[in-house]
Amino acid sequence: MHRTKVKVVEHALDANNTIARANREDFDRHGVAVLNLMSAPGAGKTSLLECALAEPLPGVRVGVLEGDVQGSYDSDRLASLHVPVAQLNTDPGFGGECHLDANMVRSALGDLPLEEIDLLVIENVGNLVCPAEFRVGEDSRAMVCSVTEGEDKPMKYPLMFRTCELVLINKIDLLPHLDFDLGRFLHYLDQVNPNAARMLVSARTGEGVDAFREWLAAVGRREPALL
Amino acid sequence: MHRTKVKVVEHALDANNTIARANREDFDRHGVAVLNLMSAPGAGKTSLLECALAEPLPGVRVGVLEGDVQGSYDSDRLASLHVPVAQLNTDPGFGGECHLDANMVRSALGDLPLEEIDLLVIENVGNLVCPAEFRVGEDSRAMVCSVTEGEDKPMKYPLMFRTCELVLINKIDLLPHLDFDLGRFLHYLDQVNPNAARMLVSARTGEGVDAFREWLAAVGRREPALL
Repeated sequence: MHRTKVKVVEHALDANNTIARANREDFDRHGVAVLNLMSAPGAGKTSLLECALAEPLPGVRVGVLEGDVQGSYDSDRLASLHVPVAQLNTDPGFGGECHLDANMVRSALGDLPLEEIDLLVIENVGNLVCPAEFRVGEDSRAMVCSVTEGEDKPMKYPLMFRTCELVLINKIDLLPHLDFDLGRFLHYLDQVNPNAARMLVSARTGEGVDAFREWLAAVGRREPALL
Repeated sequence: MHRTKVKVVEHALDANNTIARANREDFDRHGVAVLNLMSAPGAGKTSLLECALAEPLPGVRVGVLEGDVQGSYDSDRLASLHVPVAQLNTDPGFGGECHLDANMVRSALGDLPLEEIDLLVIENVGNLVCPAEFRVGEDSRAMVCSVTEGEDKPMKYPLMFRTCELVLINKIDLLPHLDFDLGRFLHYLDQVNPNAARMLVSARTGEGVDAFREWLAAVGRREPALL
C-alpha cells in the first residue's frame, strides 16, 4: 500500500514539474521573474508585501498572485497598492488543496498582465509542509517565519527552510515581549540551510523592509548572483 | 482530470473513515476518550499541553500522541510531564504528509498503554488545512489559534474552525503589543462556527489554562454535554 502511494506521489510530482517547466517558459517569454513566497498561516506574508510594495520598486514592475484556500481577503488588502493582483483559490475546482501547484498557477496566468510586469510574487497558501514540494515555475523561493512561532521551526519543517534562498524573520518588534532565542533559531536554520540569506524584518514598524525591497528588486532584475 | 482527482480524494477519505471507526472501537474497548488537537505551526499546542498537564488532571489519566513531519522535539518536551507520550512521524513511511490520518494513528496504537489512560490527546501536525479533513477516531476536536496570527484566520481556514468544538485563543499576554482586534476575530469565528466554545489562554503566563484543564477533564470523563 505504501509503495503504491509513493508511486502515485512520484507521478503527481512528475506531472507537476512538466507543467512548472511550461509556466517557466511562459514567464521567460514575457521576461518575468517569479518569486514563490511561503510561510505558516499568519506569519505576515501579506503584511510584508503591503509594506514592501507601498512604493514602487525602482525600475521593477511588480504583480502579485494571491493563493488561498478560499476568499479574497489578501488580494483585497493588496488592491490599494496599485499593482496587478490576481486571486487563486484552491477550494473551487482544486479540492481545497493546502498548497499551490504548477497547474493551479497555470490556470491563473490569463488573469495576469505578464507583458506589463517584471516580477511576479506568488503568495502561496499558508502552510509549512506541502508548498515546498511543488515547483510552480518560479526562479526563486523565499519564506517568512515569525518570531512568535518559536525557535524550533527549521528543525520541524526542514524541507521548507531548505528550499528557500531567503528567510524573512518577521515580527521582530515583538522580540522584547517573547522568550524567543534568535541565536538558537539561527543555529537551527544553519543546520538545515546554511546558505539561506536571512533578514530581520517587521512589517509593522517597517524595520528591515528596505533590505527586502532591494532583494525583491534584484530578483526582478534577474541579477545573476541571486538566481 | 479534476473529476478523477475528486474520486481519488473521495476514495481516500472513505478508506480513512473506515480505519477511523476501527480506531474508535479500539479506544472504546479501552474506555479511552480521544481529543484531536490542531493548529497552525507555532500556535502553541505543545506549550499549552506542557502548561495544562504540569499537574495531573483530577481523576483523568492522560496520554499524548505527538504528530510531526519528523523529529521528536515535541515529545521530548513533554517527557518531563510523566504521562505516556508516543511520537508519530509522517515522514518515514507516510510520505511526509502534512496531517495525521486514521491509518497513521492506527500504526501508533501499539506504542500507547491504552489500558492505563482515560484521555488520549493527539497533537496533530501544525497545519490549518488538511488535518481538519481526516478523522482519526477522535471524540472531540479542539484547535489553538494564536492572537499573533491575525483576525482573519476563521475566514481563511473555515473548515478547520468549523470542525472544532473548542477554539483556544492563545498568547493573549501579547495583546497589549499587537494590533489584533479580538472583537473582529470573534465576529469571524461566529460567522463560521457560532457553536464553538472559545477560551482566552496564555501558555506563557498560565492565564485561562485552568478552564482548559476543566474542559480536558470533562472530555476525559466523557461528560455527555461535551461529546
